Amino acid sequence: MQSVQFTAETSSNGVVEHDFTVGDVPGVLWSPVSGPDRAPLVLMGHGGGTHKRWPATTGRAHLLVTGCGFHVACIDAPGHGDRPRTAHDEREIAVLLQTRAAGEPEGPIVVRYNAHLAERAVPEWQATLDALQELPEIGAEGPVGYFGLNMGTAIGVPLTAADPRITAAVFGPHWPDALAGTARQIGVPVECVLQWDDEHIPRESGLALFDAFASKEKTLHVNAGRHKKLPRSEADGAARFFARHLGRAATATA
Amino acid sequence: MQSVQFTAETSSNGVVEHDFTVGDVPGVLWSPVSGPDRAPLVLMGHGGGTHKRWPATTGRAHLLVTGCGFHVACIDAPGHGDRPRTAHDEREIAVLLQTRAAGEPEGPIVVRYNAHLAERAVPEWQATLDALQELPEIGAEGPVGYFGLNMGTAIGVPLTAADPRITAAVFGPHWPDALAGTARQIGVPVECVLQWDDEHIPRESGLALFDAFASKEKTLHVNAGRHKKLPRSEADGAARFFARHLGRAATATA
Repeated sequence: MQSVQFTAETSSNGVVEHDFTVGDVPGVLWSPVSGPDRAPLVLMGHGGGTHKRWPATTGRAHLLVTGCGFHVACIDAPGHGDRPRTAHDEREIAVLLQTRAAGEPEGPIVVRYNAHLAERAVPEWQATLDALQELPEIGAEGPVGYFGLNMGTAIGVPLTAADPRITAAVFGPHWPDALAGTARQIGVPVECVLQWDDEHIPRESGLALFDAFASKEKTLHVNAGRHKKLPRSEADGAARFFARHLGRAATATA
Repeated sequence: MQSVQFTAETSSNGVVEHDFTVGDVPGVLWSPVSGPDRAPLVLMGHGGGTHKRWPATTGRAHLLVTGCGFHVACIDAPGHGDRPRTAHDEREIAVLLQTRAAGEPEGPIVVRYNAHLAERAVPEWQATLDALQELPEIGAEGPVGYFGLNMGTAIGVPLTAADPRITAAVFGPHWPDALAGTARQIGVPVECVLQWDDEHIPRESGLALFDAFASKEKTLHVNAGRHKKLPRSEADGAARFFARHLGRAATATA
């Protein structure tokens, strides 16, 4: 088994940030500056075209650390952030950019490319989780959540279906084509968010993906607005969801 | 103008309850035991077949008082609680009970009867709000919200459309037949809740009603489960919504 190699440490606003690698995969672990020895862990998947330190991702991680006392880990997805792109990555990204420039629907290419990335990312996440659970402040017994929107959903749905250590998850909207079948295998509590006026993902697609989860306990938060206009209050909502399901009281405020 | 006549006062758990009447309409005002002179007011509509002191209604009121420092008022709807039923009420309720006993869809009769009740209830609510705003602890300038599920939605949608003093509202699911046209006149922030497996209100109906609101800022919370299984966490969500929009920080916790 590969172990966590820490490469840097900084701290700000009550949060310690550890850069780490597990094998070739770089990540960040955000933790409370002071806190109990063991705390729940939330795995955070970033969106397509972004990386492990994207401002929205970092902001959500800080909220979970300061509001809930959790650890949060994010790794760069294949071809993203500090990781090299394969020839296949380059071709797919070129097609995506051409599609966007032509004003054509990007759904088919995003669905196809994200499914490919998920095949590569799921074993990386599982190796990362194996390694993180060796750390004394996390441990192998503690609860684990997953939080990822957009491409983070495309990777998180098959990861959550594959790994029984994940016991609660927050997902964003995605096309159901490649994901609905896998979502039907997921029975843990899930919270989904969806933008009612999303210019990329039709609302029927987001609703169909939500419908597919087998979870008895599932919640969907729909907000008016376009694809990138997710209200900040949803980050607080996610913190409250994880606090309820991973076993700590959230102190985050709206 | 009719004024508020207080008839009884009790207090428990940091909440003062005042029974009152405005004209012939009885109500309850829940207020903080100690707090600033003026605080926002939330009007709370109860569901069909229940009354102003229904446990779920009282529980939501207490959360808004203790979590947000708000005043909350609920009045008995026409034909409900301590109020007499007209011959029309008796006929419509008999038809509803027959429909239920026969296992037939109750939508058509609920839509028709709730629309009738809303015509009677909206002017009662407006007279109640006129009177409550004469109280020094509420005042005519403070923000006003509306919170009502089911029949409370059927009354609250036309009330919110008619009364510009209401600047934020939480609604439950309902059939869009009698309400969607009125919802299109509402532009204030709204939060809606909907049960994904509602055995009475088809999900398409609840989604169509949410879609109809003209509000730029609107949120829908969908939860798995049947009609009456709204999770308790939604009461906290509503408190946070009102805290954001009526101007006080919620301290309620999930």
